[in-house]
Amino acid sequence: MTIDPRFYRTGGPLDPEDLAVKLSCEASALGGTSVQSLGSFDDARPGDLCFYDGAAKAWPGRLPDGAICLVNQDEDWSSIETDGLVQLKDPRTAFFSLSDDWVSEEQHDDKPPKIHPDASVAPSAVISNGAAIGAGAKIEPFAYIGPGVQIGKGSRIGSHTSVRFSLIGDNVKILAGTHLGEDGFGLMMGDGHMADIPHYGRVILQDGVTLGANCSVDRGMLGDTIIGEHTKIDNQCHIGHNTVVGRNAIIVAYGGISGSVTIGDNAQLGGRVGVADHVNIGEGARVAAGSGLMRDVPAGETWGGYPAGPVKQWQREVLWLKKQVSRRKTSR
Amino acid sequence: MTIDPRFYRTGGPLDPEDLAVKLSCEASALGGTSVQSLGSFDDARPGDLCFYDGAAKAWPGRLPDGAICLVNQDEDWSSIETDGLVQLKDPRTAFFSLSDDWVSEEQHDDKPPKIHPDASVAPSAVISNGAAIGAGAKIEPFAYIGPGVQIGKGSRIGSHTSVRFSLIGDNVKILAGTHLGEDGFGLMMGDGHMADIPHYGRVILQDGVTLGANCSVDRGMLGDTIIGEHTKIDNQCHIGHNTVVGRNAIIVAYGGISGSVTIGDNAQLGGRVGVADHVNIGEGARVAAGSGLMRDVPAGETWGGYPAGPVKQWQREVLWLKKQVSRRKTSR
Amino acid sequence: MTIDPRFYRTGGPLDPEDLAVKLSCEASALGGTSVQSLGSFDDARPGDLCFYDGAAKAWPGRLPDGAICLVNQDEDWSSIETDGLVQLKDPRTAFFSLSDDWVSEEQHDDKPPKIHPDASVAPSAVISNGAAIGAGAKIEPFAYIGPGVQIGKGSRIGSHTSVRFSLIGDNVKILAGTHLGEDGFGLMMGDGHMADIPHYGRVILQDGVTLGANCSVDRGMLGDTIIGEHTKIDNQCHIGHNTVVGRNAIIVAYGGISGSVTIGDNAQLGGRVGVADHVNIGEGARVAAGSGLMRDVPAGETWGGYPAGPVKQWQREVLWLKKQVSRRKTSR
Repeated sequence: MTIDPRFYRTGGPLDPEDLAVKLSCEASALGGTSVQSLGSFDDARPGDLCFYDGAAKAWPGRLPDGAICLVNQDEDWSSIETDGLVQLKDPRTAFFSLSDDWVSEEQHDDKPPKIHPDASVAPSAVISNGAAIGAGAKIEPFAYIGPGVQIGKGSRIGSHTSVRFSLIGDNVKILAGTHLGEDGFGLMMGDGHMADIPHYGRVILQDGVTLGANCSVDRGMLGDTIIGEHTKIDNQCHIGHNTVVGRNAIIVAYGGISGSVTIGDNAQLGGRVGVADHVNIGEGARVAAGSGLMRDVPAGETWGGYPAGPVKQWQREVLWLKKQVSRRKTSR
Repeated sequence: MTIDPRFYRTGGPLDPEDLAVKLSCEASALGGTSVQSLGSFDDARPGDLCFYDGAAKAWPGRLPDGAICLVNQDEDWSSIETDGLVQLKDPRTAFFSLSDDWVSEEQHDDKPPKIHPDASVAPSAVISNGAAIGAGAKIEPFAYIGPGVQIGKGSRIGSHTSVRFSLIGDNVKILAGTHLGEDGFGLMMGDGHMADIPHYGRVILQDGVTLGANCSVDRGMLGDTIIGEHTKIDNQCHIGHNTVVGRNAIIVAYGGISGSVTIGDNAQLGGRVGVADHVNIGEGARVAAGSGLMRDVPAGETWGGYPAGPVKQWQREVLWLKKQVSRRKTSR
Repeated sequence: MTIDPRFYRTGGPLDPEDLAVKLSCEASALGGTSVQSLGSFDDARPGDLCFYDGAAKAWPGRLPDGAICLVNQDEDWSSIETDGLVQLKDPRTAFFSLSDDWVSEEQHDDKPPKIHPDASVAPSAVISNGAAIGAGAKIEPFAYIGPGVQIGKGSRIGSHTSVRFSLIGDNVKILAGTHLGEDGFGLMMGDGHMADIPHYGRVILQDGVTLGANCSVDRGMLGDTIIGEHTKIDNQCHIGHNTVVGRNAIIVAYGGISGSVTIGDNAQLGGRVGVADHVNIGEGARVAAGSGLMRDVPAGETWGGYPAGPVKQWQREVLWLKKQVSRRKTSR
């Protein structure tokens, strides 16, 4: 997906010469292609600049005409017939150092926010330019609505919340002290020390979502962090960048969902469940409170433990261990 | 208890005809009783509307004259002699869909807040109508004090806090980013999807309580969430709706207390202790850091582990397991 | 270290007579020494008042001339030749009840903040007197910068943050809802109930540090809480008072670091790692997500589990237990 112009602006199109300068490569390597914006590799569009840091042999074989993809020059690309590949030493770092300079938050300078006359906005709230607040929405004291953000009808945005780079559906509730759309936690090495990876994605809350107090939902790096319709999330939860949660799911307090996780419809996570990066939790699956999940949970299954496995196995382990130790104690 | 008129207002008394319309039942079923307000079943008063969703055979046999209690029509109530029972298909849902329409937050429109001349209020703080701030209290920048809230003498309300539906005693400290009185996490099915249960209770912090930074204390659904005198709660803790914590208790960082829990005087919970709904922790009990508590802890006992049990048993299990595995390693 | 006059002010020097009154002791016991300020025992300077609550036989044998140290009168100090010791019943309580009365937050009344012309400050932010904001710094909506706080060049201070008693380096990022410099969690008995220990230290974030959303970093009790260069901390983390984190370290979401912990350079803590008070984590050590750490981790080692030990031992335990239980199930 191309980055959303409601939230990000580039310094203007880059023709092959500009791009070659920014990437420190030969303009001839760019095959006459200009780029208009950034995109994620998975669904880049014509005019997007993206990067692929996988192996050449795992190349999925697609890139739209008119897109440019930065790839690793240490791989052998000779048998790949896709146009638009630019070979560089470190495509990821090259992409982000270009983007950091070229892309910034869209401020919508001459576009005052559109606030529906039936919306209620606390005098102390800050609504940025380019934002839109739907009918019946309620924006509570000290809420900060960032540039370009959309808030649907009947939604309640609690006190001391920040909502940035986000599209919020109808009848959503965000309780006090919750922060949406901050940078995700992604790191790379830069100049010999840890550096943050910039983020260009969004947060999308579908209709009927509730987020408790003191939660955080980070925006995608490229692409979206999405929470599906009527999903209910308790206080003190954290949803990482690019994670996708389905509909009617439940996440109890302190649920800590890392980046790029998927959680199916109707899944239920007990309190203090931790989920590692890229894990998939199937539709209707349940995870016991306190579990640490490092592997995928099939649809409909119930898991528990630390590290988590099928709940029956975990319970057997707990009971068996208890029994061994009690026996030994008695026999002495 | 009847809901507190300092925080909630109804749309006016409902006579049997009004009530029958709202509940979609026959006015004759209401026996001529009007209701003035909502109450919790456990301690309903005359004029309260409440609900009971237990079995008829478990009916505790009491309801004050002049109260109305919604009960499940699928149960057999013929042998129950209490007046004021109204049989409905789903009493809980009927109660909350009526209340959602009938009850709203009291705004105290013509009642500016009373701020003691010796209190110190940051210019950026918002103090709502009907609130009262005691002598020597300190309200820090960006604090939001909701309608009708009482803050006692010498209390410090930190920056970026919200205090709603709450009665705060003397010499209480609430550190930055802590939110009191938000909706608890309660769910019901509504129109085929998850819906939030409305909350009509309060938060009560007794004298000398300290709450750390980034905590959340949800108000009761019907009834109160209470923290007793001189109890000290560290950063990042969460106290669920209708939970009652005694005096001089300690809850270390990330303590996650679910709904309707009781914690006795002088109990001590180490860091990151999770407590399941309706669990009782006895007076002076101790729970080791990181424990997941799913059962009651008797007074004076020390528990630990995940799931938690008596600490000695847990320690024996940990050591025994370590020994088994070390032996095996050596013997190879 | 003497408490920092940028953040704290005393009620003026105390000569032996004043001090004797405040400590309820004989002025002659003070040997003619006046005190100017408070200090921590470990690095007290001339003119500091400090306390030592260890045993006389463990006395480290040093106190600068012109400092006063409160010690426990139940110990035998006759063989200790250091000047400036004042024997009291409860030196810790005596110290803090004196300090609570004598020391307060410095407000810098006549010293408006210095904001670099190239800094960007949201109109809703509050910058206190005595603060300084560096070139290129960005202070977002509803941020609260306390008296005397220094913010370095190019740093981003997110929305709804509070930064108090803190010195912030260059190119630091603090995401939304994070609170720095609040009181640490320290308790003592006072008048038969729990009481909070006052805090007189600071928070220091070195250059290039990133703190995620909804974090808390408490200031030192006496002395500093320090986070080293380019260390990256995810959302929902808590760093306790007097903890020192090295450079290029990583702490993933919900990392809960208690008081007086040390974490070496390049150490990496997975999500939801809890660390007990006074634990030392060596340089380059790694701790698996979800671990509860109660002992020191040597440099370069990888630990995991609850309670945590070397990761290989933990993994063997997990697998062995799984195998025992699966066998038994099969054999039935």
